[in-house]
Amino acid sequence: MAPIDLNADLGEGFGVWSLGDDDAMLGLVTSASVACGFHAGDPAGLLRVCRTAAERGVRIGAQVSYRDLAGFGRRFIDVTAEDLIADVVYQIGALQAMAHAAGSTVSYVKPHGALYNTIVTHTEQAAAVAEAVRLVDAGLPVLGMAGSAFFDEADRRELRTVAEAFADRAYHPDGRLVSRGEPGAVLQDPAAIADRMVTMVGSGQVTAIDGTQLALKVESVCVHGDSPGAVQIATAVRHRLTTAGIEIRAFC
Amino acid sequence: MAPIDLNADLGEGFGVWSLGDDDAMLGLVTSASVACGFHAGDPAGLLRVCRTAAERGVRIGAQVSYRDLAGFGRRFIDVTAEDLIADVVYQIGALQAMAHAAGSTVSYVKPHGALYNTIVTHTEQAAAVAEAVRLVDAGLPVLGMAGSAFFDEADRRELRTVAEAFADRAYHPDGRLVSRGEPGAVLQDPAAIADRMVTMVGSGQVTAIDGTQLALKVESVCVHGDSPGAVQIATAVRHRLTTAGIEIRAFC
Amino acid sequence: MAPIDLNADLGEGFGVWSLGDDDAMLGLVTSASVACGFHAGDPAGLLRVCRTAAERGVRIGAQVSYRDLAGFGRRFIDVTAEDLIADVVYQIGALQAMAHAAGSTVSYVKPHGALYNTIVTHTEQAAAVAEAVRLVDAGLPVLGMAGSAFFDEADRRELRTVAEAFADRAYHPDGRLVSRGEPGAVLQDPAAIADRMVTMVGSGQVTAIDGTQLALKVESVCVHGDSPGAVQIATAVRHRLTTAGIEIRAFC
Amino acid sequence: MAPIDLNADLGEGFGVWSLGDDDAMLGLVTSASVACGFHAGDPAGLLRVCRTAAERGVRIGAQVSYRDLAGFGRRFIDVTAEDLIADVVYQIGALQAMAHAAGSTVSYVKPHGALYNTIVTHTEQAAAVAEAVRLVDAGLPVLGMAGSAFFDEADRRELRTVAEAFADRAYHPDGRLVSRGEPGAVLQDPAAIADRMVTMVGSGQVTAIDGTQLALKVESVCVHGDSPGAVQIATAVRHRLTTAGIEIRAFC
Repeated sequence: MAPIDLNADLGEGFGVWSLGDDDAMLGLVTSASVACGFHAGDPAGLLRVCRTAAERGVRIGAQVSYRDLAGFGRRFIDVTAEDLIADVVYQIGALQAMAHAAGSTVSYVKPHGALYNTIVTHTEQAAAVAEAVRLVDAGLPVLGMAGSAFFDEADRRELRTVAEAFADRAYHPDGRLVSRGEPGAVLQDPAAIADRMVTMVGSGQVTAIDGTQLALKVESVCVHGDSPGAVQIATAVRHRLTTAGIEIRAFC
Repeated sequence: MAPIDLNADLGEGFGVWSLGDDDAMLGLVTSASVACGFHAGDPAGLLRVCRTAAERGVRIGAQVSYRDLAGFGRRFIDVTAEDLIADVVYQIGALQAMAHAAGSTVSYVKPHGALYNTIVTHTEQAAAVAEAVRLVDAGLPVLGMAGSAFFDEADRRELRTVAEAFADRAYHPDGRLVSRGEPGAVLQDPAAIADRMVTMVGSGQVTAIDGTQLALKVESVCVHGDSPGAVQIATAVRHRLTTAGIEIRAFC
Repeated sequence: MAPIDLNADLGEGFGVWSLGDDDAMLGLVTSASVACGFHAGDPAGLLRVCRTAAERGVRIGAQVSYRDLAGFGRRFIDVTAEDLIADVVYQIGALQAMAHAAGSTVSYVKPHGALYNTIVTHTEQAAAVAEAVRLVDAGLPVLGMAGSAFFDEADRRELRTVAEAFADRAYHPDGRLVSRGEPGAVLQDPAAIADRMVTMVGSGQVTAIDGTQLALKVESVCVHGDSPGAVQIATAVRHRLTTAGIEIRAFC
Repeated sequence: MAPIDLNADLGEGFGVWSLGDDDAMLGLVTSASVACGFHAGDPAGLLRVCRTAAERGVRIGAQVSYRDLAGFGRRFIDVTAEDLIADVVYQIGALQAMAHAAGSTVSYVKPHGALYNTIVTHTEQAAAVAEAVRLVDAGLPVLGMAGSAFFDEADRRELRTVAEAFADRAYHPDGRLVSRGEPGAVLQDPAAIADRMVTMVGSGQVTAIDGTQLALKVESVCVHGDSPGAVQIATAVRHRLTTAGIEIRAFC
């Protein structure tokens, strides 16, 4: 069976405020999607998480967002392509220097929150994010949703796309995530999530919220760092994947 | 006579707000000290100024600051070394990606405003800024005040230091700048400023505010981009230097 | 003929950055829609403009916005009703204290930019803004677009609504403003704008961008403070209205 | 024995980030010093804490700060008097509207963090904060350190001053707080803190860090809402004061 990458969203505190247990998560994942200061992440906190990631051999990705600390990047903003391109270039660059100072490097880019969801379908913003990545480094892979406008735009620019699935989120039959506010959107039982992941990775299929089967190409599994129980979920997912003979390894 | 570099602080608008005439200044200077978003500079504006600088062969530097949009980086902030190191790494990285996206590169680092003034004497913050530059790229020169704590700390880390003089600011006999608020602190007559510069560059001396002569090593002359009359001043300085047979060339 | 109020958007600088000529505009308008810090307006600047308004007997309104300094409040943000209510309450309160410190008071509330445009049709956000005003002071009138969802929600809460027209913006036949980006959206000839205003105020009609006549109830005319030529436009409008025998007076 | 007020710093989260257990603390204190958005406190969070305070009859104060989300207001900023006055007016006003929307009112003003410490001795900033309070409402009491420059400036403006002591912080013999970074600065044992408080309130004396006795006038005791164990400490303090026959009641 093909190996699988485990990624988590980390570095999502800000100043005095922390979120999730980055330290524990960095013992469980192979890729750290680190905030870049626009939805979360003060520079000192980012440098700390990059250093810990570097020490443990966890790969660093840039988790880029709308400029929205007050909304944690979870609110759509109708930003122009020109602004969004520059916002994303800025964030990747900031994290590249952080990763470099920590003795590592930024190995991929992943959009965060509302931006992630928006560019599944919003062609103009999808193109802006892909263009920003290309401007910084056309060799940087992007993490996202298979079948998304973002991946179309990344393909057009010959960026490498890495399809991601969510360990703890429900899917619509068309591959979209069920919105956080809706019932059943966020799964919480570590064992159930872990089983679901093994099926996903092993069979390339997942049961959608309406019970139908959905084909899902997966190269990386996201375990949210800020969910309650994130560490247990990541531990359970990791254990189940290993037990099922699936190697956990950063995508290359 | 040795050639001299002319630098100006650019990219200092934010969103809808502009400051100075970057376009005109980029036709006059050899080095653009571009804001990095902490005291000024929205990403789209920074990308624009980096692109224009790249097109015109003007070298780009990262003008790093305290995090203080509301105060334009002109207020001392008692930030810890840990935070300041990370803040400076973050800013340099952000601008590196901007410069790269514009087909150029960041060639030096210059502190801005209150940070610039503080690290003339504040050893801990001076060390933090120097350390941040070293962490990002030990080959990056730093622009600043000869004889400053900042240059001591840069020397200690074997960073190249580039001594800067100000075309439009009065000096105390000990080499410190006279504070903006004080009478006579900011010179405004383009011809007088230009004459003063030629003397400074030619003789390595400047007349301090008390009339005494002050030795001043100069490799780069700063012409503020946001002063009223900045463009006329830069034009006058440039013309006078050329007339005096002094070559205007980016330091190397 | 009924008197008419002239309002302008003021206090829209931030720290070192200024926008428009508040001082000149305060000699021309009867109502100052003062920014509240979310799209523009540092506190010291707001206090200055409130003081000048108070000295000249110009009434102060709170110009509330999305939290978006980088976008000057011109970008739609998909903020929840709960957040928007609190954001608007916060802004009105901040300006009330400013106005009070200046010896005046906040006499009305006007949404800014993208929020203004959004709540013409977005019922949930319209309700949030109206609810925020009600929570602060049910006696505060709101300035906005006649026929908007915002006015429906204000009516439902028994807030006084004051219909506003724009001196320098083109209208669609259904009463919506033509977007800034479109050709012909922003009028620039002071004389033409002034003539148009007199017709609008005198006859209650305006020629839409397609040439059809549009009925428009108007109690206040907005002259944008930040347009190029804002002062000349306001001067021309004021002069033409006076010449036409229309009294310029703050609505009551 | 005179009654004593218990106050805690609340509303100190920001957006997705929370800090401390406001809900539990509101069951223990008589005065809530609520953040105003400059060091912490997004508007929706502030409105929630104001509503809970109002429901439980806990009095609301405005906890004003330097503009410094990234540093949680714990870093000195060399802000001008003009800016500081306006910043404080802005914050008080914002919270007044919040409190009003919650059916309550702002009953006092308390500086936060570095501003609190700075204006013990920094006359210019002390005067700015006192002046701001006076401009908003000369009837608003201020909480702070007895003997501070802030209280001198408040006295000069005939503001009511309410002397505060800290339940969990060590004192220098001259009445200053021992800085957080120094050993022994922050007390953590709830029983010891509670005993200390009873002595402080009962005898008007506290043992300084060097073992000497220090006279301390106390009208309000601050129990930090964000310390680890804040709730246990507040519970212990409350219990010990009650047992000692000291009535816990908001100052009036």
